[in-house]
Amino acid sequence: MKIAAIGGGVIGGGWIARFILNGHDVHVFDPHPEAARIVGEVLANASRAYDRLFQAPLPEPGRLIWAKTVADAVTGADFVQESVPERLDLKHRVIAEIAAAAPETALICSSTSGFKPSELRQGARHPDRILVAHPFNPVYLLPVVEVVGGGEAADRACAILTAIGMKPVTVAREIDAHIGDRLLEAVWREALWLVKDGIATTEEIDDIIRFGFGLRWAQMGLFETYRIAGGEAGMKHFLAQFGPALKWPWTKLMDVPDLDDALIDTIASQSDAQSGAHSIRELECIRDDNLVGIFHALKANDWGAGKTLREAENRLYARQVEAPSGYPLRLHRARVGGSWLDYNGHMTEFRYLQVFGDATDAFLIHIGLGEAYRNAGFSAYTVETHIRHLAEIGANEQLMVETRLLGHDAKRIRLHHAILREDGTEAATAEHMLMHVSTDQGRATPLPDGLLQALDRIAAQDAGAHPDHAGRGIRDIRPREVAT
Amino acid sequence: MKIAAIGGGVIGGGWIARFILNGHDVHVFDPHPEAARIVGEVLANASRAYDRLFQAPLPEPGRLIWAKTVADAVTGADFVQESVPERLDLKHRVIAEIAAAAPETALICSSTSGFKPSELRQGARHPDRILVAHPFNPVYLLPVVEVVGGGEAADRACAILTAIGMKPVTVAREIDAHIGDRLLEAVWREALWLVKDGIATTEEIDDIIRFGFGLRWAQMGLFETYRIAGGEAGMKHFLAQFGPALKWPWTKLMDVPDLDDALIDTIASQSDAQSGAHSIRELECIRDDNLVGIFHALKANDWGAGKTLREAENRLYARQVEAPSGYPLRLHRARVGGSWLDYNGHMTEFRYLQVFGDATDAFLIHIGLGEAYRNAGFSAYTVETHIRHLAEIGANEQLMVETRLLGHDAKRIRLHHAILREDGTEAATAEHMLMHVSTDQGRATPLPDGLLQALDRIAAQDAGAHPDHAGRGIRDIRPREVAT
Repeated sequence: MKIAAIGGGVIGGGWIARFILNGHDVHVFDPHPEAARIVGEVLANASRAYDRLFQAPLPEPGRLIWAKTVADAVTGADFVQESVPERLDLKHRVIAEIAAAAPETALICSSTSGFKPSELRQGARHPDRILVAHPFNPVYLLPVVEVVGGGEAADRACAILTAIGMKPVTVAREIDAHIGDRLLEAVWREALWLVKDGIATTEEIDDIIRFGFGLRWAQMGLFETYRIAGGEAGMKHFLAQFGPALKWPWTKLMDVPDLDDALIDTIASQSDAQSGAHSIRELECIRDDNLVGIFHALKANDWGAGKTLREAENRLYARQVEAPSGYPLRLHRARVGGSWLDYNGHMTEFRYLQVFGDATDAFLIHIGLGEAYRNAGFSAYTVETHIRHLAEIGANEQLMVETRLLGHDAKRIRLHHAILREDGTEAATAEHMLMHVSTDQGRATPLPDGLLQALDRIAAQDAGAHPDHAGRGIRDIRPREVAT
Repeated sequence: MKIAAIGGGVIGGGWIARFILNGHDVHVFDPHPEAARIVGEVLANASRAYDRLFQAPLPEPGRLIWAKTVADAVTGADFVQESVPERLDLKHRVIAEIAAAAPETALICSSTSGFKPSELRQGARHPDRILVAHPFNPVYLLPVVEVVGGGEAADRACAILTAIGMKPVTVAREIDAHIGDRLLEAVWREALWLVKDGIATTEEIDDIIRFGFGLRWAQMGLFETYRIAGGEAGMKHFLAQFGPALKWPWTKLMDVPDLDDALIDTIASQSDAQSGAHSIRELECIRDDNLVGIFHALKANDWGAGKTLREAENRLYARQVEAPSGYPLRLHRARVGGSWLDYNGHMTEFRYLQVFGDATDAFLIHIGLGEAYRNAGFSAYTVETHIRHLAEIGANEQLMVETRLLGHDAKRIRLHHAILREDGTEAATAEHMLMHVSTDQGRATPLPDGLLQALDRIAAQDAGAHPDHAGRGIRDIRPREVAT
C-alpha cells in the first residue's frame, strides 16, 4: 500500500509519524522551507511516545520519502492525506493536482477542520473518493478521526485508519466544522468571554477542566456521564431534572466576543504566567507522557482509548509470533517511561518484575501458550521468582530481555531472563519457576505434547553453561552480626 | 472540627463520603425518604474507590450521624455544606435555618451550580461567611471545587477543602453558573443540536470526546493545549493563526434547541443503545476504576490531579509514621483494583512486587529513612529479591503485609514480607536484601547510628524462628529430566 501526505505541518507531521511508526513508507510533499524540520520534530516526539506506549514489539518503521511535486508523491498512491492550510481555494487546487496524478481509486482524505466534503468535491473528478478525515492533535496519539463523506470510500478509509490504531467515527450528515470542533468552539467562545470579563484566568479555567470534567471525559463522554448522574431512572430522568436548569443561563451566552488586541494580550500574558515555566517542547513531552499513562490505565480496564490500544497490540503480538529468533531468545523490549521512575530517579523496583513478567508472557506466546490456548482453559502461573538488581536503570533507557530456558519437566518451566541495556550490559536477572495449570480445574496439569516439543526444540539450542547464580538463594545475614 | 451536611442526594452524598473517608464525623439532615439509601450507596462507591485510589493508609473513617432537624445538624458546626435542590426560595429558607442555629463563624457553603453568592446572601445574617463551593460529580473523586464569594471566609473554606484532598479554585467575580458549568452548558447546547439535527448520535459524540479532546483535558486544559498547538511562537501565534478560523461557524451556533419530547425521546433511546448493556451501578464502578487509573497515571508523572493525590498521600504517610505497631510489623495495606488483574483474572505478577516494594518503603519510613533522609543524599536500594507465589489473589481483595527484619549489618538490611489475605492466610512471601547507599557518591555506605539503633530495636522484637524458606534458592530442574 502506498501512502502519500500532502502538507507536513504539525497535523500533517502527526499523520506521517502515525503511518511511519505503523510500518508504512510515506511519500511527502510540502514546499514550506521549514517542513523537514517540523516533520522531524513531530516524528521524534511520536517515536518517543510510541516507545513508552507500546509494550508489544512495533514493526520496523517505514521510510520518510520527500517528493519534489504533488504528482511525485501521489503517483500510484492508495491513500493520500491532505493537510494544507485551511483555505478552500488552496484545498481545491491541491486536490485537483492529487486527482490528476493519483490512481482513480486512490482515497483522498482531507484533514480540514472546517470544510465539508461537498465543498472539497466541487469540480473534482471522481468526487466520491474525496473525504474528510479530521484528526485531533497529537495525531500520533489521539485515536479519534472524523470520517465525513460516506459510501464505499469511507468504508475503505475506516479500515486503513483502524489498522494504524485509530478510532474512526463516521459522520452521517456533513456540517461545518464536523462534530468535535463544534463542541470545542462552543467551549472556546465561552472561555474567551470568561477571560475578557475578568471572571477567570486561563489557568483557573484550565484547572477547572483538568481537575474536573476533563477527567470524566478521558473515559466517558457527555451523555454517558449524564446518564450516570440521572441514576437508575436513566437519561429521561436526567433530562427532565436538569434540562430546565441547564437552560437558564443559555440566553446570556449568545454573543461572540471580539478577539481584539486587548483580549489577545490578556490571554497571552495569562498563558505565560500559567505555562511559561516549561518550553513548548517540554509541554509536548509532559502531555505525551500523561496521555501514555492514561492509555495504560484505560488499557488495564479494557475501556475506551485503552481498548483501542490493546487491539492494536494484539495485532502486533499476533504478527510477532511468526518472527524468527536466535538464542538466547530476544522476545521483549521496553522503554523506561517517566512513570516508571521512583523517588531516586531510577526505574522503580516493581517495574523490573513487570519487564520480566512481560518477557515471560512473550516467551509463552512464542511457544504457543497464548490467548487462544488460555481461552481453552489452560495457563502457566509463576510460582517462584529470584531477582538480582545489578545496576540502576534511568529514564528513557531502552531495555531488551534475553531469555533462556533453564529447564522444563512434565508440568514445569524454569526460565532465566536478563535485562540488557543498550550497551549490552546486564542491569538485572530473574529466574522463574512456572507451573502449567488447568484454570478450569484450578490445579497443575501436564503440558501437552505440542508445547513440550516446542520446549524441547528451544532446550536443544541452550548449549552453553547456565548462569552460576541460578538456583542460589539470598545470603543469610542476621542481627547478631552487628548486635553481638 | 464539626462538619454538617444539609441535603444528601448524589452531590450531598459525595460530600459526606469525602469528609467521612478523610476521617471526619458528618452530621446530616435530609428529610427525603430515600436519603439514607442514596447516601449509603454513594458512600459504598466512595469506599470502594478510595481502597483502590490510596496506597497510603487512610485514617479511620468518621461517623455518619443522621440529625432530626437542620438545627440539630448544624449546632456547633464549623463547616456546613448545603446541597438541597436548585430553587432559590428553598436555598434561602435552608440557609436562614442554618444561620439561626450554627455559630456566627460557621462557614455555610452551597453546592449550587447556578446561583451567585449575592443571591444566596439576600437577607442573611453574617452574609460574608455564605459561599458557593460547587463540586463536580463524583464529588469523592474529582478534586475541583469552585469557591465563590471571596474574603476571609473563602480562605478558611479553601484550607478545609484542600485538607480533604480537593483542589479549590477561587472565582474572582461571581457569575451565573460559575465557570465549569458555563463551559459544560456550551457543550451541552451544541451537542443537543447535533443530536436533534441527526448529525451524530449520543454515542458518536461521546466517542469523539473520549477518544479525542477528553484525553487531552484530563491533564491539560483548553489554553495550555492550544499553547502547545501554537508551537514555539506561543499563544499569540495560536490566536492569530486559529482565531479567525474558529470564529467562522460561531454565528451559526446561536440558537437554543427546544428540549421537547421528541428530542428527549431521541436522546434517551440513543443513550440506551450506547450504554444500556451496563446498569448505572456498573457504569459508576467502571467510571470510578477508570478515574482511579487516570489518577495513578498522573501521580506517576506528578502532574495535575495526580499531584493533588500525591500531596494527600504524603500527608497520610507523615501521620502514619507516628502510629504504633506490633511485631511482625504491619505497615502497608493494599486493595486489588481492576487494573491489577491479568488475563487469568488474578493479580498480575508484577503487582506482587509493587505491594512488597511499597511495604519496603513503609518500613524505611518507619525506621526514619523517609523523604527528608533521602533528600540529604542517602537511600536504600534493593539488590536482591526472592518471591514465592502461594495463592492466586483475586479482584477486590484487601491485602495486608506483615514484615520481619531477618537481619542487618553495617550497610545491609534483610527483610521478609508476607502478603496476608483477609482470612489471615499467606498469598505470597518475599525476601529482600537492601543496601544503604550514598546517592551523591553512588556507592554503598554505612548506616548512621540512628538508623542502626532503630533496626536494633526492631531486631530485638524478632524473637521467633525465621521462615525456613529464607535463604533458599529456586529448585534446579533441567531439560534432561524429560529430554533424556
